[in-house]
Amino acid sequence: MALARYKLVIAYDGTAYSGWQRQPDPVPTVQRVVERAFGQIVNHPVIVHGSSRTDAGVHALGQVAHADADTHIEPERLRRAINSRLPGDVDIRAVEILPNFDASRAVKKRYRYVIWRSRQRPLFYRNYVYECRFHTEISAMQAACEHFVGTHDFIAFRGRLDERQTTVRTIFHCDIHRRGPFIIFSVEGSGFLYHMVRNMVGTVLAVGRGHMPPENIPTIIEKRDRALAGQCMPASGLCLQWIRFEAPDPAKTAGPLPD
Amino acid sequence: MALARYKLVIAYDGTAYSGWQRQPDPVPTVQRVVERAFGQIVNHPVIVHGSSRTDAGVHALGQVAHADADTHIEPERLRRAINSRLPGDVDIRAVEILPNFDASRAVKKRYRYVIWRSRQRPLFYRNYVYECRFHTEISAMQAACEHFVGTHDFIAFRGRLDERQTTVRTIFHCDIHRRGPFIIFSVEGSGFLYHMVRNMVGTVLAVGRGHMPPENIPTIIEKRDRALAGQCMPASGLCLQWIRFEAPDPAKTAGPLPD
Repeated sequence: MALARYKLVIAYDGTAYSGWQRQPDPVPTVQRVVERAFGQIVNHPVIVHGSSRTDAGVHALGQVAHADADTHIEPERLRRAINSRLPGDVDIRAVEILPNFDASRAVKKRYRYVIWRSRQRPLFYRNYVYECRFHTEISAMQAACEHFVGTHDFIAFRGRLDERQTTVRTIFHCDIHRRGPFIIFSVEGSGFLYHMVRNMVGTVLAVGRGHMPPENIPTIIEKRDRALAGQCMPASGLCLQWIRFEAPDPAKTAGPLPD
Repeated sequence: MALARYKLVIAYDGTAYSGWQRQPDPVPTVQRVVERAFGQIVNHPVIVHGSSRTDAGVHALGQVAHADADTHIEPERLRRAINSRLPGDVDIRAVEILPNFDASRAVKKRYRYVIWRSRQRPLFYRNYVYECRFHTEISAMQAACEHFVGTHDFIAFRGRLDERQTTVRTIFHCDIHRRGPFIIFSVEGSGFLYHMVRNMVGTVLAVGRGHMPPENIPTIIEKRDRALAGQCMPASGLCLQWIRFEAPDPAKTAGPLPD
C-alpha cells in the first residue's frame, strides 16, 4: 500500500453531533462520518486526525485534519466523492496531498461566538446562535475582550475535564461587535483549553450586563480561579472559523535530497 | 365572551412541518402549534385563519392570519406570551387588534425561491435552498421571468390537487438574480395556485439550462398545458415573504355609525 498524506478542510453543522471526536457506536460524531465516507471511497479504513476536538453542538467552517490513504483519485475528485457520501451537515471544503502535514501542529486558530439580540426570535439561525434576553453594553464588552490579548495562564477559563498540563496560551486578537441582530465575539489564539472560548464569552457577557467591570479580567487571570470567571455558554453559538499552520519546511516537503 | 379580532404576522421554518394547515393528530402543522399556544394563553380554543396554505417544508417570514380571542392582555405582551409557548421554529412577529380584518382578503403576496449554486455544499442553509448542480444562464432566466408578468390563466402551472375554480392570477413583478452562492427568484402576485411558484421556478430553470427558450413561457400559458411547463421544485427553497391587504375601510373599522 502506497499511502499519501492528505490535508482536509472540513465544515460542519455540529447540531446533530456529539462533537468531533470519535466515540463508541452509536454516538454520532463528525470524525466517524468523515472516516466512514473516506474509507468507502479508498476501500481501506482511514483515520482522520482533526486539529480541534470541537464539543457537542459546536460548528466549524474550517476544521483541519490529516489522513493517510492509498488512492489514485486526484484530490478535487476525491473531495467530491467523499462529499457525495456525507450527510448534508458535513462538507469537505478542500483536499490536498501534503507530505508531512500534521494537523496537530496548528499555530493559530480563530473561533467565533454569535449572540442573538433582537425582539424577534432567531428562527433560521436558532441552531447557530445563543439567544440573549438581556441588554449588554458593547463598549464594556469590547474593553473586556482587549484584556484577554497576550500570553497568559488561562486556567481560570478552563473546563474541568481538561487534563492538558500547560494552561498558558497566547491570544493574538479578541473583539466583539454588533451587526444587526447579531453580537459577534471573535478570538484568535495559539490554542484553546477545554471550554475556554465559551467561558471567555460568559465572562464578557457578565461584563456586558454590568455584573463586573472589564478590569476584572486581568484579576481573574492572575488569581487562576475558575469561580471568578463567567458561566460556560451554550455550544450552539460557537464556530471554529479557521486554523493556520506553519509554512511547510521546503527541506521536508520536497522529499529526500539527491546524493 | 367579548371576542376581539387579532391580526397576526407569523414567521416559521417549515422544515419540520406538514405545511400550515391543520391536519388530524399527530401530523405537525404550523396552524396547530400556533392555535395551541394562543389557546393556552387566552384559556379558550382559538382558530387561527391563515392567509396562505403553505405546503410541507415551505418557510414563511410573513404569513398573516386572523383569530378571535377574549383577553385583556395588550397585543405586544400577548405576542411574547404566545412565543414563549411556541417551539423555536415558529415566531409570532406582530400582533394587533384590527376589527373586521380578514386574512383571506389578501391583495398581494410575495414569494421567494432560493437556489444554491456553489462548489461548496449549502451546509447551514441546506433546509432553506434548492441545491442546483448544473449551470444556468441568469439572463435567459430573467427574460423568462418577465414573461410571467401580467394577468394570465396560470392553469399550466397549477398542481393537480388544486380545485379552485378560477385559475387567472395577476403577476405584478417577477425577477431572478444572483447574490454570491444564491440565485434568488422573487415573484409578487394577486395570489398563487397550488404549486404555482414551484412550477414557475422549475420552468425558469429549464430555460436557464437551455432546455427551452424564454419565449416558450407565453406559449405554455396560452396552451394551458401543465405538461409543457417545468417540474415542480422542492419545497425547501420556497419562502412566503409578505402579504399585503387593502387599506382598511374606515366605515367598517370604526364600528357602527351613530344614529
